[in-house]
Amino acid sequence: MNAVVREPDAAVAAAAAAARTWAELPLPERAHALETVADALEAERADLVALANAETHLDAPRLNGELTRTAFQLRLFAEEVRAGAFLDVRIDRADPQWPTGPRPELRRYRTALGPVLVFAASNFPFAFSVAGGDTASAWAAGCPVIVKAHPGHPELSRRTAGIIHAALAKSGAPDGVFALIEGVQAGIDALRHPALKAAAFTGSERAGLALARIAADRPRPIPFYGELGSVNPVVVTPAAARTRSQEIAQGYAASLTLGAGQFCTNPGLLFLPADAPLVDDIARLLGETPPAPMLGPWISEAYVDGARRLADLPGTHRLVWPDDDSAPSPRLLTTDLPTFAATLAPMAQECFGPLGLAVTYDDLQDLPAVLAALPGQLTTTLHGEPTEAEQLTSLTATLAERSGRVLWNAWPTGVSVTPAMQHGGPHPATTAPTTTSVGTAALTRFLRPITYQSYPEALLPPALREGNPWGVPRTVDG
Amino acid sequence: MNAVVREPDAAVAAAAAAARTWAELPLPERAHALETVADALEAERADLVALANAETHLDAPRLNGELTRTAFQLRLFAEEVRAGAFLDVRIDRADPQWPTGPRPELRRYRTALGPVLVFAASNFPFAFSVAGGDTASAWAAGCPVIVKAHPGHPELSRRTAGIIHAALAKSGAPDGVFALIEGVQAGIDALRHPALKAAAFTGSERAGLALARIAADRPRPIPFYGELGSVNPVVVTPAAARTRSQEIAQGYAASLTLGAGQFCTNPGLLFLPADAPLVDDIARLLGETPPAPMLGPWISEAYVDGARRLADLPGTHRLVWPDDDSAPSPRLLTTDLPTFAATLAPMAQECFGPLGLAVTYDDLQDLPAVLAALPGQLTTTLHGEPTEAEQLTSLTATLAERSGRVLWNAWPTGVSVTPAMQHGGPHPATTAPTTTSVGTAALTRFLRPITYQSYPEALLPPALREGNPWGVPRTVDG
Repeated sequence: MNAVVREPDAAVAAAAAAARTWAELPLPERAHALETVADALEAERADLVALANAETHLDAPRLNGELTRTAFQLRLFAEEVRAGAFLDVRIDRADPQWPTGPRPELRRYRTALGPVLVFAASNFPFAFSVAGGDTASAWAAGCPVIVKAHPGHPELSRRTAGIIHAALAKSGAPDGVFALIEGVQAGIDALRHPALKAAAFTGSERAGLALARIAADRPRPIPFYGELGSVNPVVVTPAAARTRSQEIAQGYAASLTLGAGQFCTNPGLLFLPADAPLVDDIARLLGETPPAPMLGPWISEAYVDGARRLADLPGTHRLVWPDDDSAPSPRLLTTDLPTFAATLAPMAQECFGPLGLAVTYDDLQDLPAVLAALPGQLTTTLHGEPTEAEQLTSLTATLAERSGRVLWNAWPTGVSVTPAMQHGGPHPATTAPTTTSVGTAALTRFLRPITYQSYPEALLPPALREGNPWGVPRTVDG
Repeated sequence: MNAVVREPDAAVAAAAAAARTWAELPLPERAHALETVADALEAERADLVALANAETHLDAPRLNGELTRTAFQLRLFAEEVRAGAFLDVRIDRADPQWPTGPRPELRRYRTALGPVLVFAASNFPFAFSVAGGDTASAWAAGCPVIVKAHPGHPELSRRTAGIIHAALAKSGAPDGVFALIEGVQAGIDALRHPALKAAAFTGSERAGLALARIAADRPRPIPFYGELGSVNPVVVTPAAARTRSQEIAQGYAASLTLGAGQFCTNPGLLFLPADAPLVDDIARLLGETPPAPMLGPWISEAYVDGARRLADLPGTHRLVWPDDDSAPSPRLLTTDLPTFAATLAPMAQECFGPLGLAVTYDDLQDLPAVLAALPGQLTTTLHGEPTEAEQLTSLTATLAERSGRVLWNAWPTGVSVTPAMQHGGPHPATTAPTTTSVGTAALTRFLRPITYQSYPEALLPPALREGNPWGVPRTVDG
């Protein structure tokens, strides 16, 4: 342990001590702190990318892009902070004529929840790790952050933490606004700390559900925002398979193998017509795709185990399978819709890596009932032809009911960081289906509303004062 | 059982079958359905108030006011539905120059979660019961509602349900948008039903935590919005006690005994200076207040038991106590701040009814540390003098951190239904501190965001179509 890595109790206690100061900081100062971190990360780009490459085996172009994304999202959240719309300020003037009786003066906004614990992910060593989206959005909301480092990139995590500490100190942020902790037990201890107010997690369903349980079992339960992965079903209509077989095969194979398949939006499940050559086109392309190094042996072993488990299920067939059964190569399994429907739970289980399960159907009309039985997904995708759009209304509604993002003639990997992005979905895609973990709306996870009734100007938070000194958008009398 | 009361399985199944139709209904039609229910309830006002009076012992003026409030909040949510701002529509145009890589077209809004189970409360037989705020806000969000009736007013619940069924049928809403179920086991069965998507509850901490646990233990956990009550601490500064002793005493006694103390915002905990006559003024007024009939014997027995438990704690003194120990009369206990701090958990436990615990302090500076240790509260209140406002900044911040609503020189009973109302707070005041159960923001509990990526116009929900046929507010490109 050194100054960068802290003990969980000390980290949460320091965060609690800093919470009020950080939450009350004028918005431009909080925004400036986020931008200072973004600048500092980019200033160390070469070092950080080299470290990340050594620890994760992801290539430099990808890591450079991811660092750009990480700095960008810090700056995007800084803009959100400056704009102040996230405070959702509502002012109701006193109204003696209000229909339910005299209405007092009410001034409401959203304030920071308090210390937030972030469990870093392995597969995005920048964008979903120490300085990633959960950290940026919690800071933007005005919450101190404790990050539990992912063991897959320990040196990068420490280096990032050191840069953050220096940048925050430079920007004048109070000590305690950030801390890095390491180890499974440290994460659990921090999650159980009475001063912790929320936690965010990106990772496996098993780990996420276990942590969600710990959060719910506290004497005072706290919100737990877990993004637990998904098999991201893709449906190809007969017309699309007929018209664009090559294009769809190429798109699918590219999306499935991007980043060695190590994305939570990886399209692991594909529904396609039984009589189409599409599945063979995909098989040919995947067969030609060389194995890419995965994040580490623990990931590739889990991938190979998961692939074997799926391949051993009665009714699945190995269409693409490496000669070396233990290689992290792309794999394609097939089955038919009745078999899939009868074995849905194990067949719809995520296998993290470049494995696709192609489910062939005879009649598109049989799909909705099966799709409706799927667990919640981050994304669902429909490949169809514009001419048949009107026959796809009900199928689209079914896909929308199962996920947080529905795509048309596109691929789910690649999650843009924008105001309209939604990265979430029904359980178990996330543990909190009313929220998103990517995009500007992510910061609302870490806010709670509070109303000041008949309070004197001098004691109101600036955003609620009559003169609106922070110049934030406000809704007055509805 | 009759047509009005349904079996839980059938009720949730019917709700699930109606969910898509109800969620997709044009906003004016959904709003009209809510208004039709409001009109129907008011048309039966005399009958309903008489029934409620017989079952709850609340008086007719109060019940008339509550029915007015209930109809008003249905109409207020109807207005929210028509305005469409709750959909939070965000459209990001495709942008090939987006800093993190080409951005696809993204269209995001908030859609209905699906079937919602509402556990009715006993103490508001209209406003927090069958046609109450949780029902109205879930309907407004586009969710079908199953209400588990409170056994405290069974006939009123059935009569209300009958009126709702007729009104919804008249408005053209699909069958399944509403059902009434009865009995503890029916509530649990419905809560465990796989098609249920969320639940809302107003009631005791014990019952609420047990139900929250059932929701969390489902194979697919669902959001559980529990409003579990509170002791609503009130702090009186030395200057206020000196200047306005009579006024504060009258205000406190009136708020504590309003509705026989049967409000979740009842100010059960009062901090006041040790050397002030205020406590004697309050004692005199409470001693003169006759007992009011409570909702039923189960409530008055729990009140009397809880009062005895508090009075038997070492260090509390009975300042106002009825000669008949089993009468539901107002009671006032006192203790001092060090004793309270040392016995905080049992002393801060809610005793539902007209019981106040007055905690005397020697120095206002000693309060924040004790207040910070309190469990989460629905409200906190500060009585002070304008001249001392600047010395109360830190105390105000502490009070704000413990609750969802902070009041200045006012009383917490009486929760106005408005855009800026917040009825919630840190655990255990509610199980979901990021939400409110009163006011127009309550409907966001029952919505989840979804993004349509690159979807063709014909398959988009109307609110997301390019031409904006529903005319809802939209944010384009941030």
